[in-house]
Amino acid sequence: MLKLYHHPFSPASRFTRLILSEYGIPFECIVELPWVRRREFLMLNPAGTLPVLLENDGKPVCGATTIMEYLDETWGYSRADRRLLPDHPRQRAEVRRLVDWFLHKFEDEVSRYLVYERIYKQEMRHSDGGGAPNSEALRAARTNLRNHLRFMGYLAETRRWLAGDTMSFADLAAAAHISCADYLGEILWQNAESVRGWYAKIKSRPSFRPILTDKVLGMPPSPTYADLDF
Amino acid sequence: MLKLYHHPFSPASRFTRLILSEYGIPFECIVELPWVRRREFLMLNPAGTLPVLLENDGKPVCGATTIMEYLDETWGYSRADRRLLPDHPRQRAEVRRLVDWFLHKFEDEVSRYLVYERIYKQEMRHSDGGGAPNSEALRAARTNLRNHLRFMGYLAETRRWLAGDTMSFADLAAAAHISCADYLGEILWQNAESVRGWYAKIKSRPSFRPILTDKVLGMPPSPTYADLDF
Repeated sequence: MLKLYHHPFSPASRFTRLILSEYGIPFECIVELPWVRRREFLMLNPAGTLPVLLENDGKPVCGATTIMEYLDETWGYSRADRRLLPDHPRQRAEVRRLVDWFLHKFEDEVSRYLVYERIYKQEMRHSDGGGAPNSEALRAARTNLRNHLRFMGYLAETRRWLAGDTMSFADLAAAAHISCADYLGEILWQNAESVRGWYAKIKSRPSFRPILTDKVLGMPPSPTYADLDF
Repeated sequence: MLKLYHHPFSPASRFTRLILSEYGIPFECIVELPWVRRREFLMLNPAGTLPVLLENDGKPVCGATTIMEYLDETWGYSRADRRLLPDHPRQRAEVRRLVDWFLHKFEDEVSRYLVYERIYKQEMRHSDGGGAPNSEALRAARTNLRNHLRFMGYLAETRRWLAGDTMSFADLAAAAHISCADYLGEILWQNAESVRGWYAKIKSRPSFRPILTDKVLGMPPSPTYADLDF
């Protein structure tokens, strides 16, 4: 069985969990705290980042984009109409542009701050950098989040799914990030109607169920988080 | 003909130029200063990042990884033994892991500081953030560069090319970053013998020639930069 080293609130890890579930691939989750820089984990992935996928005796597959392409080449290929990457190179480029947008731009401008300041720092020891969130970082993240929601709103209004007519990796990458922000109550849904419509479709998929049960110790989710009629 | 929006010292842009040349694809270069955030450029790529590839009347293909996969799917596929992505999914995963390493980890820890502080800030107007380099950022980048060179040395000593037996996208991504640092005289080659051996092979390829003639106004390259017997 595949083993996934992940953190429940690492958006890149959530993205990978969603792919595995959508492709119907059985896998087992192992929680890794990336800030600890555990020696055995660094042997698997010298970059020290999540997620990492391990297949029996194989070499580890490191990083969300690399895992996405690997799972598509080894499993997605046979999934026909459930495949998450379209056939045409130009449409594939559009999916990859948006995956890159969420895994890097949204991550660097929004999730990195929200998740790091509000979740990781609560779980870290003081000597590892734990403590109270930095309010300046949170303020910047919230301003950036509004811009990203506008961009997503534009996509949701002009297309059936974010990258085109069918659900793709782009939707899963976006939903992975949005779900972390939503747990923290950072999304004002009344100001993001079209994004809400898109997210409701994704959120009600069976692949999303395990994510909706994730919890941070001592920090309950926002009222909208696990509600399918938010 | 393909048009590439690039900056001569953006490592991600250099990576794309190398791919285009290695695959023998004719292309035309248009210099873009990403910090200007030109309106027409943001219409092509709302992320505002380089490189962007434009094919006749097609939609722009944005970002180095997306362009890499696109060019491989549309041209590399027919290149047989000159293809830069191996056939086996596990080997492809290793190439992608390393491309990701250079385009993101090396970029975030080294090139971003070196290129931004020492080149972009000389070209920027004061109102855009131009000025003298920040010496603290440069110090951090130099420490990180030493660690990255050790990692690359390990790869160069244990493999023929960085990702395995054949030259791949991973070598081009790495060389794109190393070439920028080398222009600035930031690489102490006497301390990096195995990386030197690998880089000498890449540097002598015809695809590298145009890169070795790139110049920053008023800042000549280091003596090793264009020398094939450095």
